[in-house]
Amino acid sequence: MHSSALAALEQRWHEEIPLSAAMNLRVLPSPAHTLHLQAPLAPNRNVHGTAFAGSLYAAAALCGWGRMALTLEAAGLDGELVIAEGTIRYRRPVTEALALKTTFPEADAEAFCAALRAQGKARQTLEVLINADAEGFCARFEGVYAVRLRSA
Amino acid sequence: MHSSALAALEQRWHEEIPLSAAMNLRVLPSPAHTLHLQAPLAPNRNVHGTAFAGSLYAAAALCGWGRMALTLEAAGLDGELVIAEGTIRYRRPVTEALALKTTFPEADAEAFCAALRAQGKARQTLEVLINADAEGFCARFEGVYAVRLRSA
Repeated sequence: MHSSALAALEQRWHEEIPLSAAMNLRVLPSPAHTLHLQAPLAPNRNVHGTAFAGSLYAAAALCGWGRMALTLEAAGLDGELVIAEGTIRYRRPVTEALALKTTFPEADAEAFCAALRAQGKARQTLEVLINADAEGFCARFEGVYAVRLRSA
Repeated sequence: MHSSALAALEQRWHEEIPLSAAMNLRVLPSPAHTLHLQAPLAPNRNVHGTAFAGSLYAAAALCGWGRMALTLEAAGLDGELVIAEGTIRYRRPVTEALALKTTFPEADAEAFCAALRAQGKARQTLEVLINADAEGFCARFEGVYAVRLRSA
């Protein structure tokens, strides 16, 4: 993914979604078909001094939304993109900067874009892992994203 | 519920959870066994100009958390309260101030407190409705809250 598309995504979020700026959510350099986000702990802390469950969800929901938006853009598709449903399971507290990553595998993305072109609308489930390392992850998010093509 | 407990809850959130202050999340006067929250649209908007999915989730997660905390406090129980899991389904966009409400029915709350006293830990699922009116609601959240009693 071109770094200009990633920078534009972060700028769009900060301008149009005030909470993403309050969270200081950053788009990191991301390999093809992935999206990596990060946010400092301080503005996202909770009463326990660890990461706020709502911040983790909001960052994860945007991670999936961002990956979907980048995929649509790369395919030259202009669609209205919304999240229809989200589920998050918290396994252990996040005690450092929030780190999120998702992958939209190339074959799945191609199938999704083909379905969207054919039907004018399509849904996709993406998984986002939160603060994952060799020992596992702190939380796991699953979002269902719905896209409807805009009329020309 | 005494209004002082509701005011203390809002103050605690704004002091200890920066995102709740950024959202301008407010605790409203709430009948017994319920909790009503509100937040203005402007700081919680998304790229579509409607309420950001992450703001709706964060507010709903706190609504359930707050109702659990108020119930523990009223029962004289000192427990560590966390959210273990959350699911939200978005049905239609929120185009005005965010409004959230949850109820922890008295009989359920009493059973929960009894289980917590007996076992030292307990879990409870609470439902939060988002911008509900006579025609239904814009979104529905379900959170699983886990409490562990603190040693004296």
